Amino acid sequence: MGRTGVVRREPTGKKVREKLYSAAARIFAQKGYASATVHEIVEMAGVTKPALYYYFGSKEGVYKAILEKGFSDFGARMDAVDRMKGRASLRLRRLCQELFALSHEHLDAVRLMHSIFYGPPQGAPFFDFDRVLFRLHDIVRKIVRQGVRSGEFRGSPEAMTLAVLGACNECIDLELVHPEMGVDGAGFGRVIDVVLRGMEGKGGR
Amino acid sequence: MGRTGVVRREPTGKKVREKLYSAAARIFAQKGYASATVHEIVEMAGVTKPALYYYFGSKEGVYKAILEKGFSDFGARMDAVDRMKGRASLRLRRLCQELFALSHEHLDAVRLMHSIFYGPPQGAPFFDFDRVLFRLHDIVRKIVRQGVRSGEFRGSPEAMTLAVLGACNECIDLELVHPEMGVDGAGFGRVIDVVLRGMEGKGGR
Repeated sequence: MGRTGVVRREPTGKKVREKLYSAAARIFAQKGYASATVHEIVEMAGVTKPALYYYFGSKEGVYKAILEKGFSDFGARMDAVDRMKGRASLRLRRLCQELFALSHEHLDAVRLMHSIFYGPPQGAPFFDFDRVLFRLHDIVRKIVRQGVRSGEFRGSPEAMTLAVLGACNECIDLELVHPEMGVDGAGFGRVIDVVLRGMEGKGGR
Repeated sequence: MGRTGVVRREPTGKKVREKLYSAAARIFAQKGYASATVHEIVEMAGVTKPALYYYFGSKEGVYKAILEKGFSDFGARMDAVDRMKGRASLRLRRLCQELFALSHEHLDAVRLMHSIFYGPPQGAPFFDFDRVLFRLHDIVRKIVRQGVRSGEFRGSPEAMTLAVLGACNECIDLELVHPEMGVDGAGFGRVIDVVLRGMEGKGGR
């Protein structure tokens, strides 16, 4: 094979994995973990069954891989926000934009998470969704508190944390259930601005 | 039997129905519609199977009755807010409080709605959840627009509508998944206030 062969094979493997990811996320989200079959996943991905077993080992393996990948993308973006300097409102705005963009890139994975989080038990393998929830609450709360300390925000840090998260989740959830009612990036920015204005405490309340 | 007997029997029938409501909402929410059995529901309710069939006809009947009752309670509260006079911010605050109170009174029914809305198909009978969603968006948007027209609010009505709904839903959803992280009535009021301050447009942004 030689070096060139190896280089050529890499992107193909990556492509197959990505096809399997997308197909599995869609099928799991649509039918639920229990009802989804390996047959449907490989058929939608346009690959063979052995390819799924080679890359992921099993239906359980591809399920875990989707959630781990989503969590790892999410973590990387939160880390990047965590390293940012500057005004708390700018960092919060960036954090919200990252969440919004991430959810659009992985809409089926988000749908799958909602279905597992809120839905009935589907016999799906355990995944620690609380890691996602806690990480998100922690970083928002941390930036909010920094903003309060610097005098940028005024009010209850807990209330501001929930108002920010609510604005993000509302727009993301709307995209899941009624995409035609959803907002684009600019519209999303306006929703976040309503909350940030309320936090900046220039008003009288 | 006579008049007294009839009067005595009424509250008993109501009590049995209510026991069946609560038990069914809990079991449907925990196990999903498909896995829930009439046997489990009547056992948890502490009533007999014929009682369930008498009042609701079937598992499908009790499921529909739970959702219809929730929708009717919701509608009555929204109608009451719709009839309110006064400042838009006061009416929005009241609307949010009604939603928060309603979801606490029917937490299992809310969990069931989430599980059907976000979860995989469970073979549950059709229920028009969009009626709830649209009614809620419509009334919030209507009050927001009145507030914009009267000069009370400043900004994009659509953005403000989503920010208000996000604050409500965040607090309600948190109660579903992590009640220990949830907020009480006063804490909820502070979350809503963050958003209302942002809408009152006294700030500079």
